[in-house]
Amino acid sequence: MGITIKDIARICNVSVGTVDRALNNRPGISPKTKARILQVAKEYNYRPDYVAQSLARGRTMTIGLVLFDLYNRSFAQLANAVEASARKRGYSVDLVLTDKDPAIEKEVLNRLHARKSDGIILFPINEGPEFEEYLQSLGTPIVTICNRLSDHWDYVGINDRQAMKEATQHVLAQGYEHLVYICPPLAYRGVTNIYTQEERYQGCLEALAEVPEGRKVSLEVIEDKDYVEVLRRMPLEEQKTAIMCSCDAYALEVMHYVQYERQLRVPDDVGIIGFDSIDVLKYIRPELTTVEYNVEQMGCEAVNLLLERIESAGSQKDVTVKERKQRIIDYKIIQGNSL
Amino acid sequence: MGITIKDIARICNVSVGTVDRALNNRPGISPKTKARILQVAKEYNYRPDYVAQSLARGRTMTIGLVLFDLYNRSFAQLANAVEASARKRGYSVDLVLTDKDPAIEKEVLNRLHARKSDGIILFPINEGPEFEEYLQSLGTPIVTICNRLSDHWDYVGINDRQAMKEATQHVLAQGYEHLVYICPPLAYRGVTNIYTQEERYQGCLEALAEVPEGRKVSLEVIEDKDYVEVLRRMPLEEQKTAIMCSCDAYALEVMHYVQYERQLRVPDDVGIIGFDSIDVLKYIRPELTTVEYNVEQMGCEAVNLLLERIESAGSQKDVTVKERKQRIIDYKIIQGNSL
Repeated sequence: MGITIKDIARICNVSVGTVDRALNNRPGISPKTKARILQVAKEYNYRPDYVAQSLARGRTMTIGLVLFDLYNRSFAQLANAVEASARKRGYSVDLVLTDKDPAIEKEVLNRLHARKSDGIILFPINEGPEFEEYLQSLGTPIVTICNRLSDHWDYVGINDRQAMKEATQHVLAQGYEHLVYICPPLAYRGVTNIYTQEERYQGCLEALAEVPEGRKVSLEVIEDKDYVEVLRRMPLEEQKTAIMCSCDAYALEVMHYVQYERQLRVPDDVGIIGFDSIDVLKYIRPELTTVEYNVEQMGCEAVNLLLERIESAGSQKDVTVKERKQRIIDYKIIQGNSL
Repeated sequence: MGITIKDIARICNVSVGTVDRALNNRPGISPKTKARILQVAKEYNYRPDYVAQSLARGRTMTIGLVLFDLYNRSFAQLANAVEASARKRGYSVDLVLTDKDPAIEKEVLNRLHARKSDGIILFPINEGPEFEEYLQSLGTPIVTICNRLSDHWDYVGINDRQAMKEATQHVLAQGYEHLVYICPPLAYRGVTNIYTQEERYQGCLEALAEVPEGRKVSLEVIEDKDYVEVLRRMPLEEQKTAIMCSCDAYALEVMHYVQYERQLRVPDDVGIIGFDSIDVLKYIRPELTTVEYNVEQMGCEAVNLLLERIESAGSQKDVTVKERKQRIIDYKIIQGNSL
């Protein structure tokens, strides 16, 4: 059955409490003792007994992860990161998908609550005071990711606005005259939560607002989900055009259309930039210029923040707005060969 | 709160039972009545009340989906398919990942059972009588996918052996003299469940066994997970070589290495073939020759089979081996430009 915490305590000649502190990364233990305990745990292939832990702590040792879908590669990467990170801390993850449907989101939140998830990491598609009140009513610790709700919630994300502003400045610095900005979620403004996408778009507008007076740059925004169809009707070759995609998933489609259907050269005939730096970009040529942030870190920070809440036994209601935490992940522009 | 089953029954002038039959796709109802009920349900935007259903049926209306990880794109596609398909039938999906670790798999199965999942779709990493006995002991309906366990379990998959045999014949038909077969999971033979990978490999061997006597074809098998490192030491240009990858995820890495690091031309200097036809192949050039099967159909069949078991209230123990069902999905070779 493997080694137990008691066995480790005996081997290291420390108390069970000390072993627990070491294994669960809690303070009140010297670095040396901690290192020794972790070493022994590793050597003897220690596996925490989650069921026992769960009983002892009155927890289910599971957290819910609520995402839109797994089509966008960045969600799959995030899910992997959350899962790996939670598992290291002894928690299991239930990943549930909302398909960007506000009604489904409420349903899955109900279910996670009904089965007593210890906490929830939520990429929300709902928004507004009514929804936030509903979340409060669950009484379950919640960390929001990417789509912000309000100051009342712990949040992990990136500075999307500033990132897209810099991305746009990067595009403008290459002398592009016409920008085509692709972002179908903008069509859901006021309907569902499109926080990250709206922020990115505002960042683009901010950069354009700072263009010196003498210079002419035009902007065309595509909110149609059949954006490739819209591109088909555009004279992309006439001006020096850059297609700005609010995420890499769109950029891959656009690259495909522009190169293999439209038979244009990237970047010679038209420039393309993405956002997210999803892992499959490695295999794509020309290399896509994009905005990179560490999605593994994002998943890890979300888990850390949530477990902090769970383990301090603070329900949403006990935490004041001032105590809410935000973890903003760094980003950088990755210069590929597509612009 | 939306329309209820009672409302639909009143509007259509039928019994509640008839509406239930129509909405849950059960027999004992005329096609005409069913069509009318579904029409009314659609018009009035009927949403099943899962909590009420769950209470009424003594079910949680959730199923568990146990997969390795989401790195391999085909798993993410499968997860999406299962989720969409289950949701249409009123079930929510808990996706849990095992990271190919047999101990974690048992843990997550325990958890799914403890929280009373109505059924489980399992891509198993464990195997053997002891594991099957353990699964039996859960008493939860289970459908296995891809990695087969034994005749005692419902199963959805493809004929991996025959598919890889044909893929190999396709490679041989192009006159290749040397085959490099990449499949790191083979290193886990006898340790974990590598059913699909072993079947694919056997298919390759079967094709080679049928090569006419006069013709010389050599085979080199790479089981090292750092297969790119192994390729680095191989004189790929000397013979007419095809690199056969037991899944597309490896093929993408190999294409990347061969083209962008080794500076060889595909297929002129070396041929490459994959397996799975993952969705991102659309964006990759040259187009990868691969084996395609409908992963959405696979997810859908698995859900259908599982719900059949759940809704007939048959636990694993009540079903004899003879009644076990297998759903074998079609496949085909997709001719790209990489061979």
